[in-house]
Amino acid sequence: MKKIWEKDKINTSLSIVDDYCFEEGIDDDNKLVEYDVYGSIAHAYMLYKIGILSYDEFEKLKKHLIEIINLYRKGLFSIKPADEDVHTKVEAFLIKNLGEVGEKIHTGRSRNDQVLVDLRLFAKDKLLLIFEEAYQVVNTFLLAAKKYEYIPMPGYTHMQQAMPSSVGLWMASFAESLVDDLELLKTSYKLNDQSPLGSGAAYGVSLPIDRKLTANQLGFSKVQNNSLYCQASRPKIQLAVIQALVQMMMTLSKFAQDLLMFTTTEFNFFNVNPKFCTGSSIMPQKKNLDIMEYLRAKTHKIIGYQQISASIAAGLPSGYNADFGETKKPFVEAFEVTIKTLQLIKIVVPSLTPNIKNLKKACKKELLATHSAYELVKKGLSFRKAYKKIGANLKSIAEIDLVEILKQTNHLGGPGNLGISKAFTRLKNEKLWRKKQQVEFKAVINKLLK
Amino acid sequence: MKKIWEKDKINTSLSIVDDYCFEEGIDDDNKLVEYDVYGSIAHAYMLYKIGILSYDEFEKLKKHLIEIINLYRKGLFSIKPADEDVHTKVEAFLIKNLGEVGEKIHTGRSRNDQVLVDLRLFAKDKLLLIFEEAYQVVNTFLLAAKKYEYIPMPGYTHMQQAMPSSVGLWMASFAESLVDDLELLKTSYKLNDQSPLGSGAAYGVSLPIDRKLTANQLGFSKVQNNSLYCQASRPKIQLAVIQALVQMMMTLSKFAQDLLMFTTTEFNFFNVNPKFCTGSSIMPQKKNLDIMEYLRAKTHKIIGYQQISASIAAGLPSGYNADFGETKKPFVEAFEVTIKTLQLIKIVVPSLTPNIKNLKKACKKELLATHSAYELVKKGLSFRKAYKKIGANLKSIAEIDLVEILKQTNHLGGPGNLGISKAFTRLKNEKLWRKKQQVEFKAVINKLLK
Amino acid sequence: MKKIWEKDKINTSLSIVDDYCFEEGIDDDNKLVEYDVYGSIAHAYMLYKIGILSYDEFEKLKKHLIEIINLYRKGLFSIKPADEDVHTKVEAFLIKNLGEVGEKIHTGRSRNDQVLVDLRLFAKDKLLLIFEEAYQVVNTFLLAAKKYEYIPMPGYTHMQQAMPSSVGLWMASFAESLVDDLELLKTSYKLNDQSPLGSGAAYGVSLPIDRKLTANQLGFSKVQNNSLYCQASRPKIQLAVIQALVQMMMTLSKFAQDLLMFTTTEFNFFNVNPKFCTGSSIMPQKKNLDIMEYLRAKTHKIIGYQQISASIAAGLPSGYNADFGETKKPFVEAFEVTIKTLQLIKIVVPSLTPNIKNLKKACKKELLATHSAYELVKKGLSFRKAYKKIGANLKSIAEIDLVEILKQTNHLGGPGNLGISKAFTRLKNEKLWRKKQQVEFKAVINKLLK
Amino acid sequence: MKKIWEKDKINTSLSIVDDYCFEEGIDDDNKLVEYDVYGSIAHAYMLYKIGILSYDEFEKLKKHLIEIINLYRKGLFSIKPADEDVHTKVEAFLIKNLGEVGEKIHTGRSRNDQVLVDLRLFAKDKLLLIFEEAYQVVNTFLLAAKKYEYIPMPGYTHMQQAMPSSVGLWMASFAESLVDDLELLKTSYKLNDQSPLGSGAAYGVSLPIDRKLTANQLGFSKVQNNSLYCQASRPKIQLAVIQALVQMMMTLSKFAQDLLMFTTTEFNFFNVNPKFCTGSSIMPQKKNLDIMEYLRAKTHKIIGYQQISASIAAGLPSGYNADFGETKKPFVEAFEVTIKTLQLIKIVVPSLTPNIKNLKKACKKELLATHSAYELVKKGLSFRKAYKKIGANLKSIAEIDLVEILKQTNHLGGPGNLGISKAFTRLKNEKLWRKKQQVEFKAVINKLLK
Repeated sequence: MKKIWEKDKINTSLSIVDDYCFEEGIDDDNKLVEYDVYGSIAHAYMLYKIGILSYDEFEKLKKHLIEIINLYRKGLFSIKPADEDVHTKVEAFLIKNLGEVGEKIHTGRSRNDQVLVDLRLFAKDKLLLIFEEAYQVVNTFLLAAKKYEYIPMPGYTHMQQAMPSSVGLWMASFAESLVDDLELLKTSYKLNDQSPLGSGAAYGVSLPIDRKLTANQLGFSKVQNNSLYCQASRPKIQLAVIQALVQMMMTLSKFAQDLLMFTTTEFNFFNVNPKFCTGSSIMPQKKNLDIMEYLRAKTHKIIGYQQISASIAAGLPSGYNADFGETKKPFVEAFEVTIKTLQLIKIVVPSLTPNIKNLKKACKKELLATHSAYELVKKGLSFRKAYKKIGANLKSIAEIDLVEILKQTNHLGGPGNLGISKAFTRLKNEKLWRKKQQVEFKAVINKLLK
Repeated sequence: MKKIWEKDKINTSLSIVDDYCFEEGIDDDNKLVEYDVYGSIAHAYMLYKIGILSYDEFEKLKKHLIEIINLYRKGLFSIKPADEDVHTKVEAFLIKNLGEVGEKIHTGRSRNDQVLVDLRLFAKDKLLLIFEEAYQVVNTFLLAAKKYEYIPMPGYTHMQQAMPSSVGLWMASFAESLVDDLELLKTSYKLNDQSPLGSGAAYGVSLPIDRKLTANQLGFSKVQNNSLYCQASRPKIQLAVIQALVQMMMTLSKFAQDLLMFTTTEFNFFNVNPKFCTGSSIMPQKKNLDIMEYLRAKTHKIIGYQQISASIAAGLPSGYNADFGETKKPFVEAFEVTIKTLQLIKIVVPSLTPNIKNLKKACKKELLATHSAYELVKKGLSFRKAYKKIGANLKSIAEIDLVEILKQTNHLGGPGNLGISKAFTRLKNEKLWRKKQQVEFKAVINKLLK
Repeated sequence: MKKIWEKDKINTSLSIVDDYCFEEGIDDDNKLVEYDVYGSIAHAYMLYKIGILSYDEFEKLKKHLIEIINLYRKGLFSIKPADEDVHTKVEAFLIKNLGEVGEKIHTGRSRNDQVLVDLRLFAKDKLLLIFEEAYQVVNTFLLAAKKYEYIPMPGYTHMQQAMPSSVGLWMASFAESLVDDLELLKTSYKLNDQSPLGSGAAYGVSLPIDRKLTANQLGFSKVQNNSLYCQASRPKIQLAVIQALVQMMMTLSKFAQDLLMFTTTEFNFFNVNPKFCTGSSIMPQKKNLDIMEYLRAKTHKIIGYQQISASIAAGLPSGYNADFGETKKPFVEAFEVTIKTLQLIKIVVPSLTPNIKNLKKACKKELLATHSAYELVKKGLSFRKAYKKIGANLKSIAEIDLVEILKQTNHLGGPGNLGISKAFTRLKNEKLWRKKQQVEFKAVINKLLK
Repeated sequence: MKKIWEKDKINTSLSIVDDYCFEEGIDDDNKLVEYDVYGSIAHAYMLYKIGILSYDEFEKLKKHLIEIINLYRKGLFSIKPADEDVHTKVEAFLIKNLGEVGEKIHTGRSRNDQVLVDLRLFAKDKLLLIFEEAYQVVNTFLLAAKKYEYIPMPGYTHMQQAMPSSVGLWMASFAESLVDDLELLKTSYKLNDQSPLGSGAAYGVSLPIDRKLTANQLGFSKVQNNSLYCQASRPKIQLAVIQALVQMMMTLSKFAQDLLMFTTTEFNFFNVNPKFCTGSSIMPQKKNLDIMEYLRAKTHKIIGYQQISASIAAGLPSGYNADFGETKKPFVEAFEVTIKTLQLIKIVVPSLTPNIKNLKKACKKELLATHSAYELVKKGLSFRKAYKKIGANLKSIAEIDLVEILKQTNHLGGPGNLGISKAFTRLKNEKLWRKKQQVEFKAVINKLLK
């Protein structure tokens, strides 16, 4: 397809150039079609309001833009490398169908602010999905923590048995971790919720456009101000999102690493439903927990995407740079990987069953060394003396019922006081916040398409 | 020095082991002395309140702990590799001076939660400093934006001249960028503001400790709950801070890259005070802007530290892991680099003077191509047709006064409507928030040491 | 498709598991089909030689394996997520077509060593292609260096004009850089050229297999010995390749950054053929060098892939880990990006034309400051005194013909003594080495398929 | 100290500038003093040979340069931030002591090529040390492999018991891994062994300097040609070294991760000498293998340094850029960490003792599943049928002596055929190569200082 900006045959860019620059991003551009339409309708509406389009022209454009969504959903509107990108394809469609009216849609905007709008709306949608999935995972961990609250297990430091722990403490730790991660995600959500539309190529446009109007039409909570910063913010806000996703993957990666160790023959603390396992082509007996190994590896991948997104942007001068194009894929993929991971964890956790017998057997008497020292402390010995006394004679440690110890460790956040019901309450409030965001966004889009 | 946990001569760890594990961290441990004392006083007070220490014992401990601060400030309390770490050294000091009373200080805590407390307090202090410096930098950029609001300069995309821009738009873009970055930093501040004290080695302690009390004593806004998560959160909250610092460095790195280009002989848009320049050993004529090159490079370093902090933690099982030790240095250094960078930018920006003549000369007529197309649009041509018409005949572009164009581009955030006074107002509110935090923290520490 | 290792319906893995683990790798698995066939033929031949297959059985397997290649080339053999991977699909095809004979192919091997073989052969092919492309790029740079040997241009340090340089020196520097990079690539080629076949799952097999025979059949220069190390070497040798590709991309990224700066309006040192440029949707006048921006960004991507490949593998215990699966894509993609980049540079370089007039005009008198100091040195002044004298009076610098200075700077490697003909000779020898490798590899594969 | 290039008081750079740019590198500059002297002697000798210095002047310079080494070794010559760097300090020392003769030393060179020489000589020294330490580690692993050749242990894939392995196979795998890593290190050694002296600031010098002479004087195997590439090669060759060090750390990190798992209470496969362990401040019973956790973490650090070194350099234009300064520290530290790690592993490995009883007990019957399938294959069943038969009835697996199976797995590289004596032979040859390099380098330096 001849590109909008191509002035003549002679200067047409080579296909190797298109391929090098645009091919990789095409898949992701196909994911932006609906958002590009939303942004275009809002923009056209504003052009009508400021007198650049007549109402009739706006109506025509809107109708055909909605038609693009219909075609897209039927698989009849897909972007190919020769189309360059979703924006060019959408404009070309309008021009083909509407002639001169179509030629007006791009008045007062640039693909630079257009892609920003698309990515912000796309990200909003995905973030709302991630919140939903993450809340379900938190719920899942809390339920498991409640169910196995007082099942003792060895607690480890330095990968060595340290002190008594519980399946409850272990499960609940991931719930609390995710809730903190979601704080970071909320801040990135907030940064993402700014409208870049109207910033043009980075220097605004010498037309009396109404940026507040388009921001409202699209449900953004504010206009992102400085037009030059709008462009600078593209890789930065994407990075802020990825940074929060990295934190979530790290939480889940720890769970994966634990589970891989706890399901070795040697530990054998948990049973995993075989539906989550894979086999070997050579060894008849194998049941492998590939999913947890992949989760472990994918975490490093997303951390690497964080690195790539930051490095690409770090050395760039002000203004739009085509380097931004390479940040699209890590952004989109970071979302997809995190969503899939949450969906998986959501069903793996409830399927785990602790091998209570093995867990009990694994708890060596030495786990009680600190507790024994505290018993001496209660009798008046200084802690350091008690520590040395027990250390010098580990055999003197008395066997005590582990559940007793767990219940005795009942200060805030100890295994005997996990605070699960408070956590459920907090979760409920978080869900309400998300619900509100979701409902508002949906309402805005529905109104736009009506 | 014999370590607390060393049971006998035979089992003493080799010096190569100490060296491998602890040497590198010693410098950073020396930066934690005061915070270790704060945490220890709060912990001792709590031990008194729950009846493990008498009031007299608490008073003695407090007195000697404050003495440590005095010695430290005189350079008479410094940790060496053989001391292992700050915590061991502090405990050893108390035991040496107070005998059995000193042996009681470690009751109900572990070095694992102790170092967490130290790092959280250290981070709080540094974060408050960074907010202060960053606000000053924002102020500096806004002042420069106001001063040079309508000085035209070429606006670039793809490193090619694109549309008219202004020194004001350029300066103000960094201010807005930093303000967004500070949103992320505030969330990390919030996550950091949780008290891990009382989580012990990761599994709590079987003593009736009062975690709320110590949290209040130290000015934390809440108790960090799950004791196992407390440990897991160490590298994660450190990472959250670094992630926000990365964003700030990226903002400033863009300024550095711009400035390096804008001060080449070929661009020559700005004069830099020679006090910020360095010379060459071979070339008599050179004035180099090393600081901006270093800033550019240090940004990649902090991005790398983000990577290191994340990778180290990503694969670790639950519970304390000594790997955490290696995350201390990138954390401390990320703070130091960012602070120095802000302090530098704060004085570089006001020292810059635009070469107004060169800036004007640099603005080629083609910058007005889009504007010219809009003029045709105003006469009724569709944008795409106008675009093509101008594109086919760039020579037809009329010379127009650039300041006029800038002023005409007066939608929200355009060069003609930078919103600087609104930005100053926002900045003022941010400063109030910080001030409140600072005052409260100071009051808490003063009370602790009284 | 039911997987080979699936024992019954009940234990079938969920599709979400397949999706999470295998979906992403499917594209890459499709690139391994031919190599999987090569490895399978060699393995089957060996099984025949040690008496596990009859000659007839071997012939049947070989025939159907070659048939897979035929189908594959016609697009009729493609792996889908439900097929799990290329190895399972190939075995399934043989079993479907040959029944019991097909069930014998996997005797004495594992998918773990099979995928290693596939990746090594794939990498060999790609490496040979990269050498070819890289030699052509070196040739291109050398030709340009020769062509513009004495075209003066300013030489920069710290992005400031420093001393006289030449287009020749600049062009030739990239040629020399690439030749050094190829040294690293050759070492990775050598490491890759070891046969892992027969290492089984990582622990060998209790069958009298002949690893030397299969290594020879497949053209490997040696057997990779320790069966456990064979698995460990998978991410490491992949990483060694990526590390060398990183170096190549860094060489070309410097060229990109230079070119982007040298083609700004302000520098305007080179003309680029418009066929390599793209336009803007909003600005009629723009000609952007997107390809160089993409090259700059893709370099950071490949550096990030290096990071991902290393981080994933760094913390893994011995033996095969499914995490390896996630290293496949960065490996394959690093090849593809580097190849495309070389192919692009190969045609961009000869299309560049220096703006001789601008280059000359850009050369400020100050470039001669060091030369002027040397002139004083020749008259007996100490260098430091001469340096200061010139530095204090830059206006005293005499205009001298730049070409004269270039020619005078004729020590080894100076602009007056680039050593281009020696470089051509070296290149010729490198090409001979590659040719030999290519011919031998082709011969081996032809023999295998005969 | 006033810097060489400072023309007057007014233009003196601010101390905050010195601090920002040079402070961090000062430690590393102190490590370069001797190399700076070597380079300076060689350079002065060449200046004498081409007639710029008299023999007497050369002798004086040489004498005082050697004096610098003497002072340095006594701790009386150390660089401070105000000195800027080692080069400035050395020149200033000569000028202070020799007046006008000192002012001649910098004729025909730049700090840019000077620091390159220093870093190359420094790296050569460190590389030769690393080869020595690494060979000893290889030796250590081979000795352990020989000693425990037929001690059975479970072999793992996916962290699950897979097939019979041996302590010998495990130990030998690290030896082979390191030997491959050293191939990469040798290539970086070769790239590093090029003399950049005479490339000046990047554009050569207009004096008839003799680069071959200085290269020979300093023992470089060749002159690095293109003067512009000399500068470009600085971060690249540093990176090549770090890339090889990353590979070595990855090998050793795998050993660390294995050992941490194999010394958990649950596995308990090996005893570690308590001298390598550390204790806990709270838990009396703990013996932690901190060193292996630190090794695991330091590996990620060095991988991060690889990333930082590459990212910093990736986007830079041609010519010297001050950003290079930030690559010095990761380079120096990567050496130090790797050396310490090798020295540690060298003594840890021989101190390990396998818990033969536990290893035996750990080997579950299912490890023999594949072997059992092969037994059916030998009786004529197809492998896939045998696999399914065993898979469906794992209880049918016969107990077989594990040592028998190990010995039976005697193809190349299997546990029954480790090829240890061949490995010792290869090691011997490697050592000879290193010895030769070491002897030659020492001879050159001795001659230089005579």
